[in-house]
Amino acid sequence: MSIKRMEQHRSFDGEQCKYSHYSEVLQCDMTFSIYLPSNKEGKKIPLIWWLSGLTCTDDNFSQKSGFQRLADKHQTAVIIPDTSPRGEHVADDDAWDLGKGAGFYLDAVQEPWANNYKMYTYITEELTDIASTLVPNFSGEESIMGHSMGGHGALVIGMKNAARFKAISAFSPILSPSDVPWGMKAFSAYLGEDRDAWKEWDASELIKETGIPPILITQGTQDSFYPEQLDETTFLANAQKSHQAVTYKKADGYDHSYFFIASFLDDHFAFHMKHLG
Amino acid sequence: MSIKRMEQHRSFDGEQCKYSHYSEVLQCDMTFSIYLPSNKEGKKIPLIWWLSGLTCTDDNFSQKSGFQRLADKHQTAVIIPDTSPRGEHVADDDAWDLGKGAGFYLDAVQEPWANNYKMYTYITEELTDIASTLVPNFSGEESIMGHSMGGHGALVIGMKNAARFKAISAFSPILSPSDVPWGMKAFSAYLGEDRDAWKEWDASELIKETGIPPILITQGTQDSFYPEQLDETTFLANAQKSHQAVTYKKADGYDHSYFFIASFLDDHFAFHMKHLG
Repeated sequence: MSIKRMEQHRSFDGEQCKYSHYSEVLQCDMTFSIYLPSNKEGKKIPLIWWLSGLTCTDDNFSQKSGFQRLADKHQTAVIIPDTSPRGEHVADDDAWDLGKGAGFYLDAVQEPWANNYKMYTYITEELTDIASTLVPNFSGEESIMGHSMGGHGALVIGMKNAARFKAISAFSPILSPSDVPWGMKAFSAYLGEDRDAWKEWDASELIKETGIPPILITQGTQDSFYPEQLDETTFLANAQKSHQAVTYKKADGYDHSYFFIASFLDDHFAFHMKHLG
Repeated sequence: MSIKRMEQHRSFDGEQCKYSHYSEVLQCDMTFSIYLPSNKEGKKIPLIWWLSGLTCTDDNFSQKSGFQRLADKHQTAVIIPDTSPRGEHVADDDAWDLGKGAGFYLDAVQEPWANNYKMYTYITEELTDIASTLVPNFSGEESIMGHSMGGHGALVIGMKNAARFKAISAFSPILSPSDVPWGMKAFSAYLGEDRDAWKEWDASELIKETGIPPILITQGTQDSFYPEQLDETTFLANAQKSHQAVTYKKADGYDHSYFFIASFLDDHFAFHMKHLG
């Protein structure tokens, strides 16, 4: 496992870094970003995962959210993966909601995607191993958050690994991918037409299980993708049936942008830190 | 005067907007951004000007600094001009440090620049008039800040209009443009080879005057453009001779990026608000 640091910026009292490495799981070169707090007191440091939305790379959250102030304040590391495999040899689609920039945080089984589109295994295994080597004094405690497609990713990865992640939060997540245009298009391509195979990647199905981590969701009311792509009805109904700890907040007047995310990141970090002990 | 709102995002409790308009001064279409705080208490609102650096537009500070949190906290409007005239018919240069994205906040007198490159008059007159119509309950109080070339711009505009601006601050500013590569190249092109004509656009000359506003400067020690482009020696020597209220801070380990700006924006806003009453 060989990784290379491409960028290092002092940011608040910590460091914002960008790395590249060859991913065995994805069979391509990948980049990711990570923030390491100053840890002046030498404490154990937890790790929060941020998963970005369609078309994003690791740069969007790094550059547009202002999260570093909060990560330094709360003394937590934050890791930001890219949103899909990358490279000339990697399958793609002309549309911005399929292929590169649109990995949907699942493991594809259909051609031409199955060779590279294994973002779930990449994040939960390969990048997890890398992260554990980069966070000094890592406490071993983790939580996960994301935006839009990355909100879907945070919920799916968090619920499929309920013992591992202490909390899950999402901004304007795709909550019922099997029933909305973005999700149906991606799942058809990556997973095939058998809708039963979609269930393990659908937050509205996974929420039926018991013992999942506490969940916080914030959704802007002026989001141009709401409710078409981001409808919460099924997810919340199923969460209620299985008595899950889900907090779903509507944010009046906010849209789908990073201006919205930046406005509520304080709340989300506070939620995560409460559960990260 | 006709301006058009292109974007409007709720951001913290205020609004982040982007406008376009035809500039009579610059003879081209221009865009700018402005943040308006919520002003729930109906108070008088001051206005802070932000001037960006080489290659930037109004988007860099809007999207990368996280300033909206502070503007909303302190209840101040912030206006962010572009860094040069724009458009197919506007003179340009292949280099990134001359022409478009590199207006240097002065009024050019040399061809081919003199037709459009009048950023000083654009900001201090035309955009000033527009701003006064956009800020509800405007107190009339203003201050100015900027980064790199925009730090030069903030110092020059602030000192040339000492009665108007209550405070000036800059991140990694070009302090002696007449003596560093970026400034010498731009001044030669825009102003001609007579170095006497450069003095009125050089912060190290203007600081010799009396009665200028209080100044705060923060400079990262790991800035790759420091000290070559950003040397402070002459500026500080002249400030001391004329007994100016200049605070110059070195920030250990920080570079020239928006990660650096975001880290110290809290200090700069506090400085401005102290002087904006």
